[in-house]
Amino acid sequence: MFYLVRMVVSPPYGMPPEEFERLKAEEKEVGIRLQREGIWKHIWRVAGAYANVSIFEVDSVEQLHSAISSLPFFPFLSVEVTPLVPHPSSINPADNPLLKEGRA
Amino acid sequence: MFYLVRMVVSPPYGMPPEEFERLKAEEKEVGIRLQREGIWKHIWRVAGAYANVSIFEVDSVEQLHSAISSLPFFPFLSVEVTPLVPHPSSINPADNPLLKEGRA
Amino acid sequence: MFYLVRMVVSPPYGMPPEEFERLKAEEKEVGIRLQREGIWKHIWRVAGAYANVSIFEVDSVEQLHSAISSLPFFPFLSVEVTPLVPHPSSINPADNPLLKEGRA
Amino acid sequence: MFYLVRMVVSPPYGMPPEEFERLKAEEKEVGIRLQREGIWKHIWRVAGAYANVSIFEVDSVEQLHSAISSLPFFPFLSVEVTPLVPHPSSINPADNPLLKEGRA
Amino acid sequence: MFYLVRMVVSPPYGMPPEEFERLKAEEKEVGIRLQREGIWKHIWRVAGAYANVSIFEVDSVEQLHSAISSLPFFPFLSVEVTPLVPHPSSINPADNPLLKEGRA
Amino acid sequence: MFYLVRMVVSPPYGMPPEEFERLKAEEKEVGIRLQREGIWKHIWRVAGAYANVSIFEVDSVEQLHSAISSLPFFPFLSVEVTPLVPHPSSINPADNPLLKEGRA
Amino acid sequence: MFYLVRMVVSPPYGMPPEEFERLKAEEKEVGIRLQREGIWKHIWRVAGAYANVSIFEVDSVEQLHSAISSLPFFPFLSVEVTPLVPHPSSINPADNPLLKEGRA
Amino acid sequence: MFYLVRMVVSPPYGMPPEEFERLKAEEKEVGIRLQREGIWKHIWRVAGAYANVSIFEVDSVEQLHSAISSLPFFPFLSVEVTPLVPHPSSINPADNPLLKEGRA
Amino acid sequence: MFYLVRMVVSPPYGMPPEEFERLKAEEKEVGIRLQREGIWKHIWRVAGAYANVSIFEVDSVEQLHSAISSLPFFPFLSVEVTPLVPHPSSINPADNPLLKEGRA
Amino acid sequence: MFYLVRMVVSPPYGMPPEEFERLKAEEKEVGIRLQREGIWKHIWRVAGAYANVSIFEVDSVEQLHSAISSLPFFPFLSVEVTPLVPHPSSINPADNPLLKEGRA
Repeated sequence: MFYLVRMVVSPPYGMPPEEFERLKAEEKEVGIRLQREGIWKHIWRVAGAYANVSIFEVDSVEQLHSAISSLPFFPFLSVEVTPLVPHPSSINPADNPLLKEGRA
Repeated sequence: MFYLVRMVVSPPYGMPPEEFERLKAEEKEVGIRLQREGIWKHIWRVAGAYANVSIFEVDSVEQLHSAISSLPFFPFLSVEVTPLVPHPSSINPADNPLLKEGRA
Repeated sequence: MFYLVRMVVSPPYGMPPEEFERLKAEEKEVGIRLQREGIWKHIWRVAGAYANVSIFEVDSVEQLHSAISSLPFFPFLSVEVTPLVPHPSSINPADNPLLKEGRA
Repeated sequence: MFYLVRMVVSPPYGMPPEEFERLKAEEKEVGIRLQREGIWKHIWRVAGAYANVSIFEVDSVEQLHSAISSLPFFPFLSVEVTPLVPHPSSINPADNPLLKEGRA
Repeated sequence: MFYLVRMVVSPPYGMPPEEFERLKAEEKEVGIRLQREGIWKHIWRVAGAYANVSIFEVDSVEQLHSAISSLPFFPFLSVEVTPLVPHPSSINPADNPLLKEGRA
Repeated sequence: MFYLVRMVVSPPYGMPPEEFERLKAEEKEVGIRLQREGIWKHIWRVAGAYANVSIFEVDSVEQLHSAISSLPFFPFLSVEVTPLVPHPSSINPADNPLLKEGRA
Repeated sequence: MFYLVRMVVSPPYGMPPEEFERLKAEEKEVGIRLQREGIWKHIWRVAGAYANVSIFEVDSVEQLHSAISSLPFFPFLSVEVTPLVPHPSSINPADNPLLKEGRA
Repeated sequence: MFYLVRMVVSPPYGMPPEEFERLKAEEKEVGIRLQREGIWKHIWRVAGAYANVSIFEVDSVEQLHSAISSLPFFPFLSVEVTPLVPHPSSINPADNPLLKEGRA
Repeated sequence: MFYLVRMVVSPPYGMPPEEFERLKAEEKEVGIRLQREGIWKHIWRVAGAYANVSIFEVDSVEQLHSAISSLPFFPFLSVEVTPLVPHPSSINPADNPLLKEGRA
Repeated sequence: MFYLVRMVVSPPYGMPPEEFERLKAEEKEVGIRLQREGIWKHIWRVAGAYANVSIFEVDSVEQLHSAISSLPFFPFLSVEVTPLVPHPSSINPADNPLLKEGRA
């Protein structure tokens, strides 16, 4: 199952720079691990903002929530989740499992 | 260059069903052609809505506008475009050309 | 998996009353069938509005989208979908499958 | 009577972690007690957010307000309350008291 | 129980004037009956708008919904319902039943 | 003249509890005085929120502003004022002075 | 008493041009009469829009509502009313009656 | 040229009272000077809020920006500027220079 | 003086195609004339939308309003106007007349 | 490629004045360099606000993001980016490269 996730990062003014840098490094590590596990399918930065747009592919909403809430920046994130389904016109097997299964 | 595009389709009440079906068939055809040309990289349907979320990969904004405005449903679309850049943590070469070029 | 779904019904002025009544009867039939199939877990009316608030329990987002888009009133619905996960404090086994499985 | 309640939790940056953990533990305790009393009928977490969606079943709005305002996190909650009524198409006796009473 | 109800009336352009006048007369009749029954406690017009602000006092949300949805203008109303509770500082027995009961 | 006033109270995190309690006690006192003077006609609490909905009856907007801005919590209030007029269908003489004067 | 009034005019597509022109001429006439009566103190057009911003000076909200709702375009207006009070720093006697009375 | 300007003042919690009082006194002084210079044509307080609504008459946008940004409270203001033009129905020569020039 | 103007075009469904094409041709003509007159300084299309973003340079707000309201599509435009001033860091003499005059 | 960029600057209350002045000076320097490089085509201040409206002309979204995120005020900016395309009616070769190339 696919979910569009938009995250805006708002670290509070006054957070010590070391704390921020440590969280950022941990965030990157967790992000890379979730990509390797095949859950965090796509990630792009939003131009001009401290924000990203991602596609998650998960087996359940629980897995999605667990991934997002494990992010070190989670307390400073504003997150929007949009559930997606394969589009009947999609010809991309990676986005449209029905194609892989020969059902579409 | 990547763009997140969200389209909501609002065909007006009173449009003759044949006109709607004709436009829908043409829309599918144009959509498939743009995917084959490699411009319309990803498309998903938004769950519970007559709307889609897409990723376009284009050489210029002109190419993006030209693709969207060529859609038969264009007069009935409400479209939001968000410009994206590769994310420094992305490990997916398809989303992060720097990786392909060995620069990241 | 659970989804909160809010639907607002806006039948256009000018729809013939018979068409409206027919759609309404069909809507009720489909709604009852989806409840019997165990997908449409809860439905309430929003007080003072032609709108409802529902909880769907489905195996996939596809099943959710397929249910909502099969509603006869679908073209006249404005729909908001919020993906949910079991709450760690929930003591209701019907809402918290982990409890049923003895894992919570 | 049923109410949909959506709560977003925003603990301020700078709250000492012990204070936060203490409030969280108390919050859980109060939440479980209100569920046992049959007032807090359903609770789910909103995927990707520090927020929940709940259904309260109460005898009066006073009982609802008293329950919500007794929550230890109340000063840090943003709360939306939507009054609900049984839906004429509901076949779930727990959501539709008329069915229990054989009136629907 | 008290509810603040804000109704905005939007009769569609093209409604025959006789139909509008008939609905308006019926609306007034129903409104007066609901006031006489003690349910529609207060009603004011919003200055400069075709809208009203009301206080309903009802025994249940069902009674509230039933009153609002019985209005002849219901299909043309946009309605906002805010559930209220007696204010601890209120000295008005009509708004604060606890005062009447000598409990406040 | 009648005004609907909605006040949301947002005391800042970090305000010393004694200061908060002192302001709250003063607020109650001022609120009761304004009710006794017949200006603050009705006050209800918004269910689930630190907010209230009120009806003021005043001789002038100046009197209304002077009452609201004299509240000890004024710096922490977000206030919405909606001017009202008697509704032609109102049968409540307290809300519809024309009825008292025998003009309606 | 002063009120800021913002009106946006949205004549529906399909209104016969003669009806529109007739309403516009009547609107102007009523507008001029209300200015002459001293109620409609100031009127400006909003640049780039079919909208205006006005200051009304009236003895009561009733007088304000009666003026606005008498406008021939009233059914096609979206109106926002903001109640105003003299500003303590105003040195303009026309806006600050206290100055005229020598009380400020 | 006329501009409608709406300013909301939000002094931060924690600003020392003396600093606030000093800024307020300076603000009044600057406000009176700008009124005397004929730039700040009208100013009213918004009822129930720490906000004002003003009409500026200036020779250029530069003059307007320079006036607003010279206000001591500028860093704590949220400002909305709406450009206005004389209304063809205005009979007030002060608002409609064309009348003064005998061109309207 | 500079103004940012954003126009969204919404021709109503049902407008005869010839009427639309005629208006579009006239719109282009007027647009080119206003550019030649030096008033409509810049115009770009918003990618993916039937909308444009423009910079007008005018001697007065009246001139701006007169230009916008002379557009054949004016009844179908939703327009946002933002007044601008030269930016102190601008090194572009066309945008910063002070530079031309040697005053910056 | 052209982008409309709107930036609102919100330096937090409590930032030491020297830090603010240092950032402001650096901001100006970076802004001038980006203008000289031909990327930051136009910049205007929004009248009455600590905000600006700009046109960037860049070879890629990456270049745009890199420019914006290099601004010293970036952590205190709220940024909106709107991708633009040449307008078919534009007669300004600087905004419409097709004209330069003799293709329009």
